[in-house]
Amino acid sequence: MKNDALSVIAEKIKAAESVWLFPHVNPDGDALGSCAALCRGLRLMGKEAFVLVDEELPANLRFLDNGYCTVDCEKLPEPDICICVDCSSEDRFEKRAQAFYRGRLRICLDHHPARESAWDYNYIDPKEAATGQIIYALLAELGVGPDREIGEAIFAAITTDTGNFQYSNTQAKSHLIAAELYEWGVDCNKVSVAIYENVRLEKMMMQTKAMEGLKLIAGGRGALVSVSREILRETGAFMDEAEGLSKELRSIAGVEYAAVIKEYEREKIKVSLRAKSRGNVARIAEKLGGGGHVKAAGCTIKKPLREAEKLVEREMLAAIRELDEQ
Amino acid sequence: MKNDALSVIAEKIKAAESVWLFPHVNPDGDALGSCAALCRGLRLMGKEAFVLVDEELPANLRFLDNGYCTVDCEKLPEPDICICVDCSSEDRFEKRAQAFYRGRLRICLDHHPARESAWDYNYIDPKEAATGQIIYALLAELGVGPDREIGEAIFAAITTDTGNFQYSNTQAKSHLIAAELYEWGVDCNKVSVAIYENVRLEKMMMQTKAMEGLKLIAGGRGALVSVSREILRETGAFMDEAEGLSKELRSIAGVEYAAVIKEYEREKIKVSLRAKSRGNVARIAEKLGGGGHVKAAGCTIKKPLREAEKLVEREMLAAIRELDEQ
Repeated sequence: MKNDALSVIAEKIKAAESVWLFPHVNPDGDALGSCAALCRGLRLMGKEAFVLVDEELPANLRFLDNGYCTVDCEKLPEPDICICVDCSSEDRFEKRAQAFYRGRLRICLDHHPARESAWDYNYIDPKEAATGQIIYALLAELGVGPDREIGEAIFAAITTDTGNFQYSNTQAKSHLIAAELYEWGVDCNKVSVAIYENVRLEKMMMQTKAMEGLKLIAGGRGALVSVSREILRETGAFMDEAEGLSKELRSIAGVEYAAVIKEYEREKIKVSLRAKSRGNVARIAEKLGGGGHVKAAGCTIKKPLREAEKLVEREMLAAIRELDEQ
Repeated sequence: MKNDALSVIAEKIKAAESVWLFPHVNPDGDALGSCAALCRGLRLMGKEAFVLVDEELPANLRFLDNGYCTVDCEKLPEPDICICVDCSSEDRFEKRAQAFYRGRLRICLDHHPARESAWDYNYIDPKEAATGQIIYALLAELGVGPDREIGEAIFAAITTDTGNFQYSNTQAKSHLIAAELYEWGVDCNKVSVAIYENVRLEKMMMQTKAMEGLKLIAGGRGALVSVSREILRETGAFMDEAEGLSKELRSIAGVEYAAVIKEYEREKIKVSLRAKSRGNVARIAEKLGGGGHVKAAGCTIKKPLREAEKLVEREMLAAIRELDEQ
């Protein structure tokens, strides 16, 4: 997909009076950090800017919302520009899709591979570690100077999407931007504490309970845990909070394949699959009717939990055997 | 303490033919990463260099040792220089202290606050996030060019001592160095996987078992877990592996004070204390006969586990009450 220059997008924004920003559903640190940084920048420029969301923000990201987010755009006048941020597909802001088309001009800023191109202008670069890095560059084009609050939001975006500068998507650029944020006076430690040291007790206890049932297969090369509805009832946790478990499993020495098996309903089991280095979980997911990337994939199995567990274990064993034969 | 310029220290090293490096006991990522980077650099310069250690390296740091580490220096001829790295006190390399004095010249490179000054030359700067940053600067003085293996070791040193660029000691400089390592061709993700995705199953199960016994006090503002000898027996873990638990506790929303209570022997209980933001655990540790920093401190209690737990809980409650009165 051909990109417009950020300078061109910046000119369009400069000419606008009002801008709405659209992060994806279930917004993460990059989506919200990017939106908060841009919204703050736009307001500093004297524009009327809002971030439109569908849902309450995750508790550990609420510090990013200094009066930017709203679920209600009915009373607002039509905006000059609507920008989707950290997503490039309408199905990632379903409820807000109508509102998105109220913008006279539509722009997309993202770092995920894009399928469609329903925008007037776009800057989509999958090589960028985080959309926050694109926002950082755009704000420079807009001439919005060093600002501590913008810096905190940019840091939140980059640190979450790079897994604290650990994932393979991390770039030299990610570190260079972080270094500059220190010059802006950003307290990066404060941001990390807000994001990472703010885990609900219910989540922690759910993860502990799930880990008690850890199952290792093939001499410890495959690891599986299940989160049943019973565990959620016992601990008061939400299923979304099981997200971190796959990282736990993958961190065990020797584990190449990890699966977190989540019982959303009696016969609706969602499976998160992860590979550490040589494995390919996209193949496992496809066999089970799902899909995804080589190192991170998923599927939904419409069977009871115990049956789903057996299916996942069987496919994981087959994948490990294939790996041995390579 | 007055520092010698790194250029002066570099001149001394250039003039030497053999150098021994001394990391502290129970070496961590910074100690071993710094030693590995410097040892590799010295060998590239044609010098005879070794890292002297007391013990087997932690499994997740073994990748740093490409033939540098030895426990046996008896057969080696006297070295021109001995350098203690990431420590500045002989009691941190007790068994090797004699060997240290076999060096004709003694140098100290460290970022911990130093009490003594028993070196011919030293560069000790507590403002540096990691000793690895000092080694990086020293290697530049020595004219040792970009090298992938050195870069991996420097990254290991910085990422571990900054808690993945999250802790408050992280500097703009830490990020600038990391950015340059990317230019050297270092696969920082590979280093992170080796260090962080290499957790012994026994450790993971010990932490899970300990977390089952989590106790919250004062409305969730204090958190305590105990690691009994029984838990170690059941899981096969080592007590040293309980280290990560204090980070877990502190990450719970609302927790200000965290204590990990470790039963080393029947009446030898070591306590690790952590504060998240406003608390001061040095004061708690002092009351219990120990000491440390404001945010991280510890003590040893010579009583049975249950009694030690009660003492810690009592002092933690008192500290929380004091915080309320401020």
